[in-house]
Amino acid sequence: MSVNVVDMILKKKAGGALSEEEIRAFARGAADGSIPDYQLAALLMAICFQGMDARETTQLTMEMMHSGGVVDLSAIDGVCVDKHSTGGVGDTTTLVLVPLAAACGAKVAKISGRGLGHTGGTLDKLESIPGCSVEKTQEEFIAQVQEIGCAVIGQTHDLCPADKALYALRDVTGTVNCVPLIASSIVSKKLASGAGAIVLDVKTGSGALMQTLDESIELAKAMVDIGAQAGKPIHALVTGMDQPLGTHVGNALEVKEAIDILAGRAGGDLLAVSLELGSRMLVAAGVAKDVEAGKAKMREALESGAGLNKLKEMIAAQGGDARVCDDLAYLPHAAYKIDVPAKVGGYVAKMDTTAIGYVAQDLGAGRKKKTDAIDPAVGLIMQKRIGERVEAGEALATLYLNKPELANDAIARMQDAIAISAEPVTPPTLVYAYVSPEGVVRA
Amino acid sequence: MSVNVVDMILKKKAGGALSEEEIRAFARGAADGSIPDYQLAALLMAICFQGMDARETTQLTMEMMHSGGVVDLSAIDGVCVDKHSTGGVGDTTTLVLVPLAAACGAKVAKISGRGLGHTGGTLDKLESIPGCSVEKTQEEFIAQVQEIGCAVIGQTHDLCPADKALYALRDVTGTVNCVPLIASSIVSKKLASGAGAIVLDVKTGSGALMQTLDESIELAKAMVDIGAQAGKPIHALVTGMDQPLGTHVGNALEVKEAIDILAGRAGGDLLAVSLELGSRMLVAAGVAKDVEAGKAKMREALESGAGLNKLKEMIAAQGGDARVCDDLAYLPHAAYKIDVPAKVGGYVAKMDTTAIGYVAQDLGAGRKKKTDAIDPAVGLIMQKRIGERVEAGEALATLYLNKPELANDAIARMQDAIAISAEPVTPPTLVYAYVSPEGVVRA
Repeated sequence: MSVNVVDMILKKKAGGALSEEEIRAFARGAADGSIPDYQLAALLMAICFQGMDARETTQLTMEMMHSGGVVDLSAIDGVCVDKHSTGGVGDTTTLVLVPLAAACGAKVAKISGRGLGHTGGTLDKLESIPGCSVEKTQEEFIAQVQEIGCAVIGQTHDLCPADKALYALRDVTGTVNCVPLIASSIVSKKLASGAGAIVLDVKTGSGALMQTLDESIELAKAMVDIGAQAGKPIHALVTGMDQPLGTHVGNALEVKEAIDILAGRAGGDLLAVSLELGSRMLVAAGVAKDVEAGKAKMREALESGAGLNKLKEMIAAQGGDARVCDDLAYLPHAAYKIDVPAKVGGYVAKMDTTAIGYVAQDLGAGRKKKTDAIDPAVGLIMQKRIGERVEAGEALATLYLNKPELANDAIARMQDAIAISAEPVTPPTLVYAYVSPEGVVRA
Repeated sequence: MSVNVVDMILKKKAGGALSEEEIRAFARGAADGSIPDYQLAALLMAICFQGMDARETTQLTMEMMHSGGVVDLSAIDGVCVDKHSTGGVGDTTTLVLVPLAAACGAKVAKISGRGLGHTGGTLDKLESIPGCSVEKTQEEFIAQVQEIGCAVIGQTHDLCPADKALYALRDVTGTVNCVPLIASSIVSKKLASGAGAIVLDVKTGSGALMQTLDESIELAKAMVDIGAQAGKPIHALVTGMDQPLGTHVGNALEVKEAIDILAGRAGGDLLAVSLELGSRMLVAAGVAKDVEAGKAKMREALESGAGLNKLKEMIAAQGGDARVCDDLAYLPHAAYKIDVPAKVGGYVAKMDTTAIGYVAQDLGAGRKKKTDAIDPAVGLIMQKRIGERVEAGEALATLYLNKPELANDAIARMQDAIAISAEPVTPPTLVYAYVSPEGVVRA
């Protein structure tokens, strides 16, 4: 290879743009180990400070996408549409909108991830349903989507090894938080998963990777731009993560909430965001002419029970016990249920959503390390949302746990994570912006 | 260790100052390998962008100094004074000023380095003298300084392993050029070498690590500050490296130039800078009351031949053939001598001194890798200095080489490295600034 790695690092350190050849060497060197980790780490840190322009970011995305296999979904009729979230707490939109969108005629072939850190992962949630598997061959995956309109599985083969190597390195070198690196990582995986159109949910706020709105919009724009340059339509919503999106946090608990919504027993912000995202998926899939028509279709599928039926079909197709959709008793349940009382009365003013995510993780709902086992039954249910009135001693949340010895610490941390004010508080915005190839529309 | 390395990287990335505990973990982790290279690399790059304050820089210096052995020179009477240069081309001040300063009564116990890249190293120059050794036990080293007043040797034992590890990593991660990292690296080694007072020569210009005057002054100040905080007086001169300092570049050639100067047959910028630095060493050693008195003493030692005699004593004490001082024929000589003609007439306007250093390296005077062998005889002699008139076809320099097949490439590169202008040119400044604990005095 004719690329000099030190020169490449020095160029980026000085604020220059890497050449096509250099970006290629960077991605390949990460994938095949031909560039040592210490040089990749220095380059990643220099990129955190100097950024990458749109051409560099798109090229890095494409190089990472092509560093491994690319799923071929061409055997499926119509445009396969995918949705991805940058990660939130109590965010089980996938389990709400995938069945609804499929019930409306869209094809959703979704390759999902596992939870790590304070955020949950869809695969772990699905696996909390007895018998439900997220492992399929590519042929089985395609056949399921073709037959019932949707499937949510783990990676079928080695997608984006360059991204995998860089992501692991970023995690231990303080270089996660960098817009072009996040954007190229997410989009490379989505493109390698074979989607024809992608709707992104970029979270912003106290539980999100990007805590400021400007950064979140910047990230959304970067990803939409890559899509435009790569010829794949990408649309993004920037939505609030100032509190858990749904009220339930934890794997089986979140499945329960999705079922409650699809059964018409629940709603709230989780449903609202699911409709916003899902309606755009329907437009991208060509089964709704605009967002309003898409929302109307989604609501129809909700009210008719078609969405819940689709979820049953999907669970059954993936080997799971679909009876959970009619009887929540078939889901795993935690042995103990303990309330988190408010120390003072007032209005719920603010939440440290990341801290709440870590409480659920520490109860056993999430992983500290990739190899940790999780407990599908544990987690918590939020009893109050920002802006709501609470009396001293009233429950802010309820913990669901199998190890009662964890309760005291969890209660104290939950109380610390939820600020209560004497003055009335306005609930936070839910949808902050819509970013499409045409530009940014702030709500 | 309770320090979280990722948190430390993130803190520095965000512009924070590392705690005492973190700096200690950083230096120890580098020395004992307990922090992986990729994390050190990310931290080093973050430091390149965010810097380190005086407290951090001094502490890093002290931690690196104490990461290995520290030479104990207390058995030597008086203040042992050392001099260090940030590295230049044709810079053999050590071989001029060490004998002169010792002849004036200062004790100079100098631990030197080898050449790497475009700059030469004093140890290689000394070894070009037949028989001359730079290896001594610590006892022999101290005994020689005590007896004749000076010694110049290589490291006696494992000094500054933390610096060694970080320096090797900086070299391959594009993180060499960073004031607090350079300052802590240089000063840690000098303090570990046991000097009681240090005079630094910070080079600036086309052949120097720091190419701008502001950066060079910043580096000088950083090192002087560390000395002040560590309780060891450090004084620094910022001197020009816009052209080779002496006229001779190459190991035996530079020994020849030093002998020519000590014998009164040569002078110029190399002597001028040697007197500037040497006089400050005499003041630091307490054998001259001020710089002017120091210079007068140095000139006396030069004119009386006491300096040349001291060089003879030092060479003899280190096993070398001291007859070189009286008869240059005892030095190794290159087989071929070829002029570099000026392509056009005019005034020498500018030199790419780094490029000239690399020409000498490629002739065999220097190393590309640490393990490369060098040819003591080869190099070049500059025939013109900036500001001087040259006619078309007249020699700009003369190459001394043993492989005549290298001549054509070397001639072309030398011609490219030396710009000639039609208009008269003012010679560059030689001494730009003097930096002491009292502040910066610009010339």
